Amino acid sequence: MDYETVALDEKRPAVVILDQTQLPGRAELLYLTQAREIWEAIYLLKVRGAPAIGVAAALGMYVLAAQSKAEEYALFLKEFQEQKAYLDSARPTAVNLSWALKRMEQVVLDHAGQSPAKIREFLKQEALAIREEDIRVCRAIGEYGLSLVKPGDGILTHCNAGRLAAVRYGTATAPIYLGQERGYHFRVFADETRPLLQGARLTAYELHQAGVDVTLICDNMSGTVMKNGWVNAVFVGCDRVAQNGDVANKIGTMVVATLAKHYHVPFYVCAPTATIDMSAPSGEQICIEQRPAREVTQMWYREPMAPEGVKVFNPAFDVTDHSLITGIVTEYGVARPPYDQAFQKIFEKKAAGRTGNAL
Amino acid sequence: MDYETVALDEKRPAVVILDQTQLPGRAELLYLTQAREIWEAIYLLKVRGAPAIGVAAALGMYVLAAQSKAEEYALFLKEFQEQKAYLDSARPTAVNLSWALKRMEQVVLDHAGQSPAKIREFLKQEALAIREEDIRVCRAIGEYGLSLVKPGDGILTHCNAGRLAAVRYGTATAPIYLGQERGYHFRVFADETRPLLQGARLTAYELHQAGVDVTLICDNMSGTVMKNGWVNAVFVGCDRVAQNGDVANKIGTMVVATLAKHYHVPFYVCAPTATIDMSAPSGEQICIEQRPAREVTQMWYREPMAPEGVKVFNPAFDVTDHSLITGIVTEYGVARPPYDQAFQKIFEKKAAGRTGNAL
Repeated sequence: MDYETVALDEKRPAVVILDQTQLPGRAELLYLTQAREIWEAIYLLKVRGAPAIGVAAALGMYVLAAQSKAEEYALFLKEFQEQKAYLDSARPTAVNLSWALKRMEQVVLDHAGQSPAKIREFLKQEALAIREEDIRVCRAIGEYGLSLVKPGDGILTHCNAGRLAAVRYGTATAPIYLGQERGYHFRVFADETRPLLQGARLTAYELHQAGVDVTLICDNMSGTVMKNGWVNAVFVGCDRVAQNGDVANKIGTMVVATLAKHYHVPFYVCAPTATIDMSAPSGEQICIEQRPAREVTQMWYREPMAPEGVKVFNPAFDVTDHSLITGIVTEYGVARPPYDQAFQKIFEKKAAGRTGNAL
Repeated sequence: MDYETVALDEKRPAVVILDQTQLPGRAELLYLTQAREIWEAIYLLKVRGAPAIGVAAALGMYVLAAQSKAEEYALFLKEFQEQKAYLDSARPTAVNLSWALKRMEQVVLDHAGQSPAKIREFLKQEALAIREEDIRVCRAIGEYGLSLVKPGDGILTHCNAGRLAAVRYGTATAPIYLGQERGYHFRVFADETRPLLQGARLTAYELHQAGVDVTLICDNMSGTVMKNGWVNAVFVGCDRVAQNGDVANKIGTMVVATLAKHYHVPFYVCAPTATIDMSAPSGEQICIEQRPAREVTQMWYREPMAPEGVKVFNPAFDVTDHSLITGIVTEYGVARPPYDQAFQKIFEKKAAGRTGNAL
C-alpha cells in the first residue's frame, strides 16, 4: 500500500491528497493548507468519492483551525463556522461533506467556552477518527465480501468505488484488496464506465498499481466476459440504497446487474450502512441527476465525436432493481432479500454494537 | 436524401464516396479514379461497411477498366486481373469485397475474346447492378422491418448498420428511413458503440443529417432508456448469422439483446440473406476478432485514459444467442424461431424468386 487517498500531514499540518484529476498519467500528492485550496480540491474533483470528500473536509477543518490565531472561544467559533460554510459550498449535493463538517462543528460546540488550543486537539482527534472509521467500515465490508468468493475467482466491477473514493480499501474493491493481502489471486475486470471513464482512469489505475490482475474492458463487453464464464461475482459500490433494496449507482450498474442475472453470476452491492436510506421506500423516489451532453460528445476527445447539435441523454446514475441484486454487503454483514427485513436486522446490530466514534 | 455513400460519376468516370474518416466533423466527397486511391479508401476505412465496400470495389473495377488502353482481350484481361488482385488485398477478411470483385471478373471471363470497349460496357452495367441490388435489398429489409413497428415508436440501434455502411438505406436503419419518408416520426436512440464510436460518429450523424429525431446515448445507458419505456423495438445489423439464428455483430449487441429480453422489448436483427451462413451450425463456430488495446485506452483521446501497461480485452464482435432474438429481418421476409426452418423457407423463396442481377 504505497499511498492513501486522503491523509493528514501532522507536522505542517496539511491535508494530503492524491490529485485524481491527473490520473492515470501522473500520481501527484498535494499538500493543502489554505481554505481556498481545500475548497478547490473538492470542487474540481481532485479528491472525489463520498467517503474521501468527507474525510478531506474533516481533516481540512482541523488544518484550518490549527492556523487560527483566535485566543477566545467566541472568535474561534466564528472563524470555524465561516470556514465550514465555505467548504460546505464546494459540492452542495455530497451528503458526506456536510455530514463530516457538522460532526466537526459539534466538537467545537460541545466544548463551548474552552480554550481554542484545547479544542484544536479534540478537532484533530475527531478528524482522524472519521478517517479511521472509513478504513474500518471499508475493511469490514471487505471481510464480508471476501466470504462470498473463492481464491482465483473472476470479479467484475463498474465505475470506481475503490480506494480512490475512500481512504484505503474502498467499498467494492475492499474484498479485492483483502483477497490480495491473503493471496487470493483474483482476476478482476474493470468496466471503463462511460462517459467519465472512472473505471479506466481510476479503478484500472489503483488495482494495476496494487499489483492486482486487472483487465480493462469497455462497458459493452461485460456481457461477453460473463458469457465466457470468466466472472464469478460482481461487486459494485452505491450512492444510495432504498428500503426495498433498490440501488442507485453510476450509470450502467443496472446493465451489469441484468447481465449478471442472465448469466447466473452473483451481483453484490457494497454499501456502508450510511448509504441505506430507510426513508426512501423504493428506487422510484431517487432522483437521477442529468449531466451535460458535452461529457458524451467531446470530453477527453481530440475533437467532437458526434454531430453538432445532436440530442444527448446523459443520466449520471441508474437504479438497479432489488430483484437483480444477490446481496448487499454492509459493515455489519450481508443483507439478503427481502431487504427491508434484512436492513432492520442490520440496523439493530449497528445500534447494539459499537457507538460514537466507532461507527 | 442529400448524398449516397458510394456512387458512380459517369462522366469522369470516378467512384464517388463520402469520406467517413472525416465524419462527423466534415462531409467531404472524394472522387477516386486511380487504383491506389480506391485501395487506400478501402484500406483506411474512408469507405466501410460490407455492402458499401463491395459496391465501391465493383464501381472501382469499372472505372479502372474504362481507363485501360488495351485493344486486345488478352492484355485487357491481364490488366483487369492484376487490378482485381490489388484491390482484393485492401481488406482480406471482407467477404463482400472479394465477392464483388469475383462477380466483376466473371463478366470479363464470360465475354472472352470480345473487344475491351464492349466488355467495359458490360462491366459498367454489372457494377451499377451490384449497387442497385444493395439499394433494393436494403429497401426490402426496410419494408419488412417497418411492418414490425408503429408510428411514434421508440427505436434503439447499436453501432452503424446504416446508410453509411451501404449505399442508401442501410440495413438496421432501413425501417427508420422508410418510416421517415412516410411520416412515422420515430424517436431513435443511438448507442455510441465503444471503442470505435460508430454510433456517435456515423449513426447519430446520418440520422441527424436526415432529420430523424435521434438521441445519442452511451452504451451503458441502453438499459435505462428501455426501463423508462422509451424503446418499442431494437434494430441492429449483423456480420454473420449461423444456421440456428445465433448472430455475430458489433461488440455490445448481445448486451442490448439481453436487456431487451429483460424489459420485454422486441429485438430484431436486419440481415441480408448473404450474411446467413448455413454452414455454421451455431455462433460457437464464429471466430471473434480481437483488436488492439490502444483502441480502448487512447484512440480519440487527448492523452492515454488508462494506466500504462494495463491489460485490455477488446473483442470487435460478440455473439447474440438466438434465444434473445425476436426476429431476423431479411429481404425475403422476417424469420422467426426456430430459425433453421425459417431460413430454409427464406432460401426457397429466394431460389424461386428473381435470380441473376435481381438478387
